[in-house]
Amino acid sequence: MKRRRFLATSALAGSVAFTVPSASAAPEPPPGDVTGLLAAYLVGASLDSVPAAVRKEASRTLLNYAGCALGGARSDGVNRAIAAFTPFFGPPQATLIGRTERVDILHAALINGIASHILDYDDTHLKTVIHPAGPVVSAILALSERQPVSGSDFLNAMILGIEVECRLGNAVYPAHYDRGWHITGTTGVFGAAAAAGKLLGLNKQQMVWALGLAATQPVGLREMFGTMTKSFHPGRAAQNGLTAAFLAQQNFTSSDHGIEAKSGWANVVSTKQTWSEVTAGLGTTWEVSLNTYKPFACGIVIHPTIDGCIQLRDQFRLTADRIRSIHLRVHPLVLELTGKTSPHTGLEGKFSVYHAAAVAIVEGAAGEQQFSDRAVQNPETIALRGRVSTAIDSSLAEDQVRITITLNDGKNFEKYIEHAVGSTRHPMTDTDLEAKFLGLAAGVISDSQTPRLLDLCWRIESLPDVSVLARACSTG
Amino acid sequence: MKRRRFLATSALAGSVAFTVPSASAAPEPPPGDVTGLLAAYLVGASLDSVPAAVRKEASRTLLNYAGCALGGARSDGVNRAIAAFTPFFGPPQATLIGRTERVDILHAALINGIASHILDYDDTHLKTVIHPAGPVVSAILALSERQPVSGSDFLNAMILGIEVECRLGNAVYPAHYDRGWHITGTTGVFGAAAAAGKLLGLNKQQMVWALGLAATQPVGLREMFGTMTKSFHPGRAAQNGLTAAFLAQQNFTSSDHGIEAKSGWANVVSTKQTWSEVTAGLGTTWEVSLNTYKPFACGIVIHPTIDGCIQLRDQFRLTADRIRSIHLRVHPLVLELTGKTSPHTGLEGKFSVYHAAAVAIVEGAAGEQQFSDRAVQNPETIALRGRVSTAIDSSLAEDQVRITITLNDGKNFEKYIEHAVGSTRHPMTDTDLEAKFLGLAAGVISDSQTPRLLDLCWRIESLPDVSVLARACSTG
Repeated sequence: MKRRRFLATSALAGSVAFTVPSASAAPEPPPGDVTGLLAAYLVGASLDSVPAAVRKEASRTLLNYAGCALGGARSDGVNRAIAAFTPFFGPPQATLIGRTERVDILHAALINGIASHILDYDDTHLKTVIHPAGPVVSAILALSERQPVSGSDFLNAMILGIEVECRLGNAVYPAHYDRGWHITGTTGVFGAAAAAGKLLGLNKQQMVWALGLAATQPVGLREMFGTMTKSFHPGRAAQNGLTAAFLAQQNFTSSDHGIEAKSGWANVVSTKQTWSEVTAGLGTTWEVSLNTYKPFACGIVIHPTIDGCIQLRDQFRLTADRIRSIHLRVHPLVLELTGKTSPHTGLEGKFSVYHAAAVAIVEGAAGEQQFSDRAVQNPETIALRGRVSTAIDSSLAEDQVRITITLNDGKNFEKYIEHAVGSTRHPMTDTDLEAKFLGLAAGVISDSQTPRLLDLCWRIESLPDVSVLARACSTG
Repeated sequence: MKRRRFLATSALAGSVAFTVPSASAAPEPPPGDVTGLLAAYLVGASLDSVPAAVRKEASRTLLNYAGCALGGARSDGVNRAIAAFTPFFGPPQATLIGRTERVDILHAALINGIASHILDYDDTHLKTVIHPAGPVVSAILALSERQPVSGSDFLNAMILGIEVECRLGNAVYPAHYDRGWHITGTTGVFGAAAAAGKLLGLNKQQMVWALGLAATQPVGLREMFGTMTKSFHPGRAAQNGLTAAFLAQQNFTSSDHGIEAKSGWANVVSTKQTWSEVTAGLGTTWEVSLNTYKPFACGIVIHPTIDGCIQLRDQFRLTADRIRSIHLRVHPLVLELTGKTSPHTGLEGKFSVYHAAAVAIVEGAAGEQQFSDRAVQNPETIALRGRVSTAIDSSLAEDQVRITITLNDGKNFEKYIEHAVGSTRHPMTDTDLEAKFLGLAAGVISDSQTPRLLDLCWRIESLPDVSVLARACSTG
């Protein structure tokens, strides 16, 4: 079976490669009624047929989303977006996560989507490098404050939205991404439309139109990576998808074949269309199961180094002053993307495998705070950073590293990371996810609010009304 | 010099081809700082340097826009869009054209943009088949109710917005359109961003970011033609452009090279990028000068037939009962796009050159009313339609026709239309445009309001405050 590399080359997200079997190397049959098949599936799908493990993964995705949006809620990017839109906000219908304001749900979806991505710390569907939760959860969390939505309906809609989003991604990746599209924004709008459409109870024709209205509003060029506009993409995708669902609910007509037609989405935005990725196994496989969460607040390509350094530090109680040198053998792409030797700002630190290794030893962590200006300018970390060296080793994959730490006394410690923590092969545990959530929530919501929100995310499926969870994200 | 065909193949707009010299057949130099050059030009450009004829053409474009938006204001599509968004409207800042509601300016831009295009009767930049006014005027007319805008500033912003929109269109047409993009939506967002950014007084860096934010939000697949979503495209482009300008005003960062970068707009959405079309002659040529207005409410490809039939009717006082047959020699594309012999609805009538010829004789006109269900089902027109025959003549261009009308007494009348009324070679007169406007406004705004609005459009350049014009479009 042919093997294919999946690369995440977001400037901020860094990069990671995986070798996984491709779905099929055989020529594709003609598409048939792809949009109609998807719509029929969405309208009929019930949570009853979703395995418990899948539902659990969705709750982990939700928890990670909430933490990331809290962590990003007071960033410059979110502040500026709110300043831009404040004069145009509609009624105070929905929560802005981690903030006091309440705004209309279309703007809430947009702004919460921006917040969820602005730290580049959110979830990743590694097969396509889609960040699934941002568009989907931002749309339906807002919608849940407009109409009563049970936790099980919410979870069902969320799983379905992520399913549509990632299946469309599978169909066009990597050609679509290689052309320059930020796939989170271009597929996210479908995910948001599908999830919102499900909660609105659209009939099949309306769901077809919602998908068509999503098809015609792709958001996001990769050229925007490294700017605030990157995080605008999942936000706008959430808002566009919600808009598509509301228009379809009013029988605003669209194409019946918005996805597969000659001038439809897949043909216009990609040279690859693997239609079976969209339609095969609907209702039996679940893309949310493949979702991953970043343990570290930087590009995935640095994660193995951080993972290994923290493991060595904890195992051998290493401190910076005892270390003569750290040597990293890495895949070429690691240095191409994160080869900055002397970062000056926290943001630049995210592009420096040297800083990452040093701060992992000095602080034993690699969260947002370890990629702050403070951490990057810490003299102890700077000094250790100068003793980090790298060498390219093409026998390694992008998600692997060989670390050698040499102490002042000449003693060597070695570590080979085959799959970093946070990958599908070595996922973050629930405890890891909780710790990440707590770190992101700290100082944003109150100490009493944090465990309550954590609990609501884990119990999502049994909540009678999800607006309780949405309001628990507010600081108002 | 190489000659190139420009085709309009909108399902609703019909099609027309023009043979005009291509801008250049030589290879393109590397793009350089296209976005920066455009932004610098936009920030500095003043109305003083715009020739009077160009300003006049812009006022004609404005008048045609107002008429089309009034005519579409009460359509099903606009009604459904308003129903979808009403729960989310912000403060009542701006007029919905031809309606009583006042809404926030972002939604006003969206809905007025839909209204302007839903009859497919709006303006056309024939080189690219862009409908320039919808995105640009919808954005800045709404903005003019949020801040004081003089008529001369409005006209300047409008001319600049159309300039950016059409120049980007020239750069990527026809490859971009052929791939399946509805070029009005994908370039319109730049036009709206540029025009709004000009009125907001953005500095160069902010204008660069506004263009980047526009680049990342293209709207519109051609697959949506024939559905309400087609008219959503110019509306959403207006709203997206306005959004881009407001975000940039708050220093929400974006790429500095959103248009020309490898993963920027032009490379991602097109295989053709003729960069000189964007930057050569800025400030000395004016795309709005090439704008045209439809005299008839149907696809441009039928216009020569209608023009010729009405001329023969008027010249020889022809009536349907005296006519034995009407024979049309046309380019193949005319039958490909409008070959429907037995239309049953007004919308189907727009795709029937047979109905068009018949109704032109029976009613002496071809406005919205001649493409109503009533007109298509009129027995006299149906009978005459059955006596219309066609033949393909490849020696003719798509905008030409040879008509032979044979009377019952055997007498023949012939007419050759080389350039139909409404083309750049044979533009609608001001009187024609006024008559079109009056027909569209009739029954939407009051009889006393109509001449006032007409006057305000003609006098746009001298208005102290454009909000007066916007409010004159309201029925509230």
